[in-house]
Amino acid sequence: MTSTPPLGAALFGVGRIGQVHLKNMVDNARLRVQWLVDVTSQHDLMMRLIDRYRLTGEAKVLDIEDSDKVFSDPGVDVVIVCTPTPTHSDIIKKALTAGKHVMCEKPLTLTVAETKECYDLAKQNNRILFCAYNRRFDKQFYTLYQRCTRGEVGNLRVVRFTSREGGQSQEYLKHNKSRIFLDMAIHDIDYICWLVGEKPSSVCAFGSISSDNAELYKSFQDVDCVTAILNFPNGVMAQMEDTREANIGYEQRVEVLGTKGLIQTQNIRTSELHTITQNSCQSEALLQTFLDRYIDSFPTELEHFVNAVQGKEDIIVSAEGCITAMEVSEALSKSLKTGNIVKL
Amino acid sequence: MTSTPPLGAALFGVGRIGQVHLKNMVDNARLRVQWLVDVTSQHDLMMRLIDRYRLTGEAKVLDIEDSDKVFSDPGVDVVIVCTPTPTHSDIIKKALTAGKHVMCEKPLTLTVAETKECYDLAKQNNRILFCAYNRRFDKQFYTLYQRCTRGEVGNLRVVRFTSREGGQSQEYLKHNKSRIFLDMAIHDIDYICWLVGEKPSSVCAFGSISSDNAELYKSFQDVDCVTAILNFPNGVMAQMEDTREANIGYEQRVEVLGTKGLIQTQNIRTSELHTITQNSCQSEALLQTFLDRYIDSFPTELEHFVNAVQGKEDIIVSAEGCITAMEVSEALSKSLKTGNIVKL
Amino acid sequence: MTSTPPLGAALFGVGRIGQVHLKNMVDNARLRVQWLVDVTSQHDLMMRLIDRYRLTGEAKVLDIEDSDKVFSDPGVDVVIVCTPTPTHSDIIKKALTAGKHVMCEKPLTLTVAETKECYDLAKQNNRILFCAYNRRFDKQFYTLYQRCTRGEVGNLRVVRFTSREGGQSQEYLKHNKSRIFLDMAIHDIDYICWLVGEKPSSVCAFGSISSDNAELYKSFQDVDCVTAILNFPNGVMAQMEDTREANIGYEQRVEVLGTKGLIQTQNIRTSELHTITQNSCQSEALLQTFLDRYIDSFPTELEHFVNAVQGKEDIIVSAEGCITAMEVSEALSKSLKTGNIVKL
Amino acid sequence: MTSTPPLGAALFGVGRIGQVHLKNMVDNARLRVQWLVDVTSQHDLMMRLIDRYRLTGEAKVLDIEDSDKVFSDPGVDVVIVCTPTPTHSDIIKKALTAGKHVMCEKPLTLTVAETKECYDLAKQNNRILFCAYNRRFDKQFYTLYQRCTRGEVGNLRVVRFTSREGGQSQEYLKHNKSRIFLDMAIHDIDYICWLVGEKPSSVCAFGSISSDNAELYKSFQDVDCVTAILNFPNGVMAQMEDTREANIGYEQRVEVLGTKGLIQTQNIRTSELHTITQNSCQSEALLQTFLDRYIDSFPTELEHFVNAVQGKEDIIVSAEGCITAMEVSEALSKSLKTGNIVKL
Repeated sequence: MTSTPPLGAALFGVGRIGQVHLKNMVDNARLRVQWLVDVTSQHDLMMRLIDRYRLTGEAKVLDIEDSDKVFSDPGVDVVIVCTPTPTHSDIIKKALTAGKHVMCEKPLTLTVAETKECYDLAKQNNRILFCAYNRRFDKQFYTLYQRCTRGEVGNLRVVRFTSREGGQSQEYLKHNKSRIFLDMAIHDIDYICWLVGEKPSSVCAFGSISSDNAELYKSFQDVDCVTAILNFPNGVMAQMEDTREANIGYEQRVEVLGTKGLIQTQNIRTSELHTITQNSCQSEALLQTFLDRYIDSFPTELEHFVNAVQGKEDIIVSAEGCITAMEVSEALSKSLKTGNIVKL
Repeated sequence: MTSTPPLGAALFGVGRIGQVHLKNMVDNARLRVQWLVDVTSQHDLMMRLIDRYRLTGEAKVLDIEDSDKVFSDPGVDVVIVCTPTPTHSDIIKKALTAGKHVMCEKPLTLTVAETKECYDLAKQNNRILFCAYNRRFDKQFYTLYQRCTRGEVGNLRVVRFTSREGGQSQEYLKHNKSRIFLDMAIHDIDYICWLVGEKPSSVCAFGSISSDNAELYKSFQDVDCVTAILNFPNGVMAQMEDTREANIGYEQRVEVLGTKGLIQTQNIRTSELHTITQNSCQSEALLQTFLDRYIDSFPTELEHFVNAVQGKEDIIVSAEGCITAMEVSEALSKSLKTGNIVKL
Repeated sequence: MTSTPPLGAALFGVGRIGQVHLKNMVDNARLRVQWLVDVTSQHDLMMRLIDRYRLTGEAKVLDIEDSDKVFSDPGVDVVIVCTPTPTHSDIIKKALTAGKHVMCEKPLTLTVAETKECYDLAKQNNRILFCAYNRRFDKQFYTLYQRCTRGEVGNLRVVRFTSREGGQSQEYLKHNKSRIFLDMAIHDIDYICWLVGEKPSSVCAFGSISSDNAELYKSFQDVDCVTAILNFPNGVMAQMEDTREANIGYEQRVEVLGTKGLIQTQNIRTSELHTITQNSCQSEALLQTFLDRYIDSFPTELEHFVNAVQGKEDIIVSAEGCITAMEVSEALSKSLKTGNIVKL
Repeated sequence: MTSTPPLGAALFGVGRIGQVHLKNMVDNARLRVQWLVDVTSQHDLMMRLIDRYRLTGEAKVLDIEDSDKVFSDPGVDVVIVCTPTPTHSDIIKKALTAGKHVMCEKPLTLTVAETKECYDLAKQNNRILFCAYNRRFDKQFYTLYQRCTRGEVGNLRVVRFTSREGGQSQEYLKHNKSRIFLDMAIHDIDYICWLVGEKPSSVCAFGSISSDNAELYKSFQDVDCVTAILNFPNGVMAQMEDTREANIGYEQRVEVLGTKGLIQTQNIRTSELHTITQNSCQSEALLQTFLDRYIDSFPTELEHFVNAVQGKEDIIVSAEGCITAMEVSEALSKSLKTGNIVKL
C-alpha cells in the first residue's frame, strides 16, 4: 500500500533463527527475498523453504562459497546474517563494502576489535549495520525502557536482570565458541547499558558449575551460572544472573528501582489457565525457549531495520552501544577468570 | 487509655464461633467479660476458657437454664449471642427487654416475622440490636463497598457473588435447621442488597445436588449448590452462586461492574509462596475455612458494636437491611421450590 | 513440505474479519486464494489486498453480484464466508450445492430453521459446513475443554461464562440485525453447551440497559447487559453474563467448578509490565477488542477447517451443536422478552 | 490448659518493637509479665500499658537504673530485650549470669567479639540466648526454608534476597549506630547463611547514595543502597540488595533457584482488591512497614522461645549462625569500604 519499491534482501544462514527471520521477511511487504545462502548440506532445506513460502521465481538458492554473487547483485539492498558467530565478521565486511545494509544476529563478532572494524566500515560506506539485540524489541522490554527514560520511576537506582534457560548441547557450545558472557549474558549487558545510558565504571563477576550437567561445561572451560554486579558512574548498580540448565522453562526478567517506584517485566506462561484444587493453585508452565518467548519481537526488529534503511527512523542499537556491550562482556569474563573487580 | 469505664459483657454460646468472639472480647480494652453462658455439658470448657484468658475473679460460668441472672445483672451492658439459630430469638428478646445491647450471629432468627419482632423490641427499648454480618467487616469487602458507594466504578451495572466451601456434617445441618439460602447464602444476599442500596424487585433461583455427597443433602431436603439472579429496580442485576462440598478450600469473592470500571475481591491463599518447575507454576492452596479467611474481621465487627454502644458510630447493619436479607432469602427458597421467578 | 496440492479458496467479504482470514489464508501453505468477493465499493480495497499479499496472477477480484463465477469454478474447493449475517444463508446454500466446503462466520444464519436447512444441504452434498465458533480454538478455552472432558476437575457442577466488551456503533447494530443473545452471547452459549455435552432443559434470562449509552440500545429494542442461567439435565448449572459498553477493555472468561476442583481462563493484558509505587501496584490494561484477544485462534480454526477438508480430523463444531446454540439463543431471547423461565 | 506454671517474664524497652512483644507476651498463656523496664521518661507510657493490658497487680514498672531488681527476682525466668543495640550486651550478660533465659532483638551486639562473649556466657550458665531473627519465623520464609532443606527444588544454585524499605529518620540512624549491613541487611545475611547451611568463602559489596535524601546518609558516612554477592564453598551464589528510601512500601523477597525448580516468596499488599479500568489494572499498595508485614511472625518467634525454655524444641538460631551473620556483615562492610572482594 506504498509506492516505494520493495528492498531486495539476501538471507545468510537458514538454521533455527534464520528460518524465523525468513518467515518475517516474507511477511514484510517492503522486502523481496532474492537469495538464500548457506552451506551445501542445507540446499534441500532451502529449496523446501522456497516452495513453502511460494518464492519460486523470486528467490534463488546459493552455496555460501559463492556468496560474492550476492554482493555483486545490484538488486540486493539488505543482507541479513544468521550464520554462526565466527563467520559474521567476514560476511558483514563484504556486504558493507559492496554497499549493502546489514542486519546481523548477536553477538556481532567475537571481539571488541572486530566489532569496531565492522562499525568503522559501516561509517565509511555510509551503510546501516544493525546488531539485532532482539530483547530490546520485545514489547515488555521496550516499553519498560521507554517508561524509565521518560522518568516514570524517577532517577534509576538499581537494575536487576535475570536470565535462565534450559540446557545447551555439546554441539551448540562447540560451534558457538563464545562463553556464557558473550553468548548468553550479552543480551542482559546490552539492555542494561542501554537503559542506564552509560558505560559501567567497574564490574565484578562470579561463576559456578552448579547444574547436574557439570562435565559438559567443564569440558569447554565454561560455567553454567554467573552472577555479576555492574557499577555505573551515575550511581546506578545493576545485578545480573545468567543460568543455563535451569529446569523451569525460559525465564528472563528485568526490574528497575527508581526514586519514584519499581517497574518489572514478567515471564510468560504457555497459557493463562488457572486451576484450584484442595491442595494447591496451579498455573501453566513458563514458555520453554527464547523462541517461544520472543517470537513477536523478531518481526518488530525487522520492521525497525527496514524503517531505518528507508530513512524513517534511527537504529536504536548504536555502534557505541554495541561496542560497549562487547567491552563489558570481556571485562566480566576477565573478572570471572581473575577473581578481581575489573575497572573499565 | 480512656477514662470511659469498660462495658460489662455476657457471652451466650462457647462453641467454635463463640470462642472466636471470646478471644476478641478479652483483647478489647473497652469490654469486661462478666458471664459465659452455655449448656451444662460445656461447663468444663467454660472453666478452662476462664483459666486460659486469666478471667478468674472477673467472669463467671452460668448454665443457660439460669440465664435470667445475666439479664438481671446491672453490670451487664452488652450480650453477645453465639448459640444455635433456633435459640436466638428468645435470648435477644429477653436481653433487649432487660435493657441490654445485643450483638447476635447471623441469621438473626429463622423467619422474617421473628426478625421484625426483635427489631421492634430494640426500637421500643432504645437498644442496639446488631446482626453480625461478618463479611461486611472484612477489609476487602468493606473497602469494595466504600469505593463503590463513592462512585469509583461509576453507576453499578452487575454484581457477582461467589461462595464455595467444603462439606457440612450431618450434625451441623441437623442442628442448624436452616437451608442453604438462609444458612449460607444469607451473607451474599445481605452484602449484595447493602451494596446495591435497595431491595430486589424479582429473584430467580435454581439448585442441584451435584456433589459426591448427594445423600446427605437429600436427607435434609436441601441442595448443595444454588445459582440465582436478583433484579433490582435501579437496573442492577446480581448473580449469586453458593456451593457446598467444593473441594477447593474456602472461596468467597464479589465483583462489581460499573459504568466506569470493574472491582473485585480475591481469595486468600495459605501463603504467598510460588514455585516454578519444568511443568507448572504452583501457588499455595486457598485458606480452608471461613474462620481462616475472616479471622481478622471478627475483632473489627466487635469494635464496631462497642463503638455503636458508646455512641461513636451508627450500626451499619440496619433493621431494614436485616429484614430485607431475610425476605430475599425466603423469596429465593420459594423460587427454588416452585421453579418460578418470584417478585418481591 | 507436503505433496498434496493446495486447496483453491474463495473469500466472501473483506471487511474487518475478512481481512483477518485473508492474512491467515495467505500464510496457510495448503490454501491458494483464488477469489476475493465483495460489494462494488470494496473493489479498490480488494485490489490493494491482492497487491499487499503478492497475490497478483493468483487471486482475482469479483463483485458479489457475479459470485456464480466462484461456484462454477472447478478450481475452488473451499469458500470462506465473512459477509454480514443476513447474507450467509444464500452464499452457504449455493456453495454447498456447487460442491464446495464452507467455513462461515457465526452466527451461521438468523434462525434455527435456516441453520437446519444449511446443515441438511451439507449432508446431502457430503460437504463440510463449518460454523467458525472462534473461541473454541483459543488456546485457553480449548485446553480448558480438553481438561474438563478428561475429567481433571471431576464431574462438572457449575460453569460460569463472562463476556464484556466496549461499545457498538449504530452502524454495526443496524447492519447486524441480530440482538445481544444471537450476536454476542452465542459464543458463550456454544461453548457452554459443547463443554457440558448436552442441551439445557430450561433457561432464564434478564436484561437491562445500564450503560451510559442507553438511547442507542433502546432504539434497536435491544439491551446492553444480560444475565442468564442455563440448567442442564445432568445437574450442571451455567451462569452467563454478556455486557456491551463495558469500559474495561475486552474481557471474556470461563470458569468451571467440578467435584474435584476449579479451572479458569484469564483475561490477557496488553503487556505484562508491572509497576509498584507508594500508593498502588499497577498492571497494564486488558486487550481492547476481541481481535486483539483472539488473533491467534483464527489461524488455528482455519487450520482445523483445512485438516477436516483433507480428511485429517473431524470438525469439532457439529451440526447438532450449532443448531443447539441457535435454539438456546432463541429460548433466552424469549425468556428475556416474556419474563418467564423457558423450557427446551 | 496446661499444668506447667507460667514463666515469669521481664521486658526491657517499651518502644515500638517492645510494645509489639508486650502484646504477644500478654496473649501467651505460658508467660506472666512481671516487670516492664525502661528509662525514666517512659514511666507514664509503661503505666498506661499496664492499665491497657490489665496487668495491675501482676506487673511492675522499673527504671532501667534499677534493673538489678529484675535479675535478683527469683520469679523472673525469661528476659526479653528490646532496648537500643548498644545497651544489649550489658543486659544480656547480667541476665544470663543471673540464670535467666534471654530473647534479644537483632543485632545481638555491635561486634563479633561481643556476640561471642554473650554466647560463651549462655553456654557457661546453661541458659538459652535467642537472637530473634524475626524473618525466619514468617510463614513464607519459614516454609521456603523447610521446602528447600527437604530438597523440593533440588540442590541449591542461586539465592536472591531483596530488601527495600522507606526512609529512616536522623534520630533512628543516630541512635542505632550500626550501618546498613549491620542494621538492615543482617536479616538477609542471617537467612541466606541459614538456608545455604554454611559460611560464605568470599563476599563482595557495592554501595551508593542514590535516593533523594542523600545528605542524611552522607552525614552518617552511610549509604542508602547496597548490592552484594556471597559465594559459598558448595557453589551456591547469593545476591543481595538492601535499599533504604524506596518509595514503594515495604518489600522483602527471597527466591531460590535449585536444580529442580524455583521457589519465591511474594510481597504482601494492604488488601487484595483488584480494579480494572479502560487504561489499567490496579492492585493495592504494598504494606508500608516491616511491622505491618511481619506482625504475625512476632508471636510465632515468642512461642518458639517459650517452647525452647520449656525444653520442647531447640532454638533454630544457633550461636554459630548468629556469629556467622555478624562476621559476614563485617566482611561486607569491609568490602564496601575497600572496594575489594573479601575472603572469610
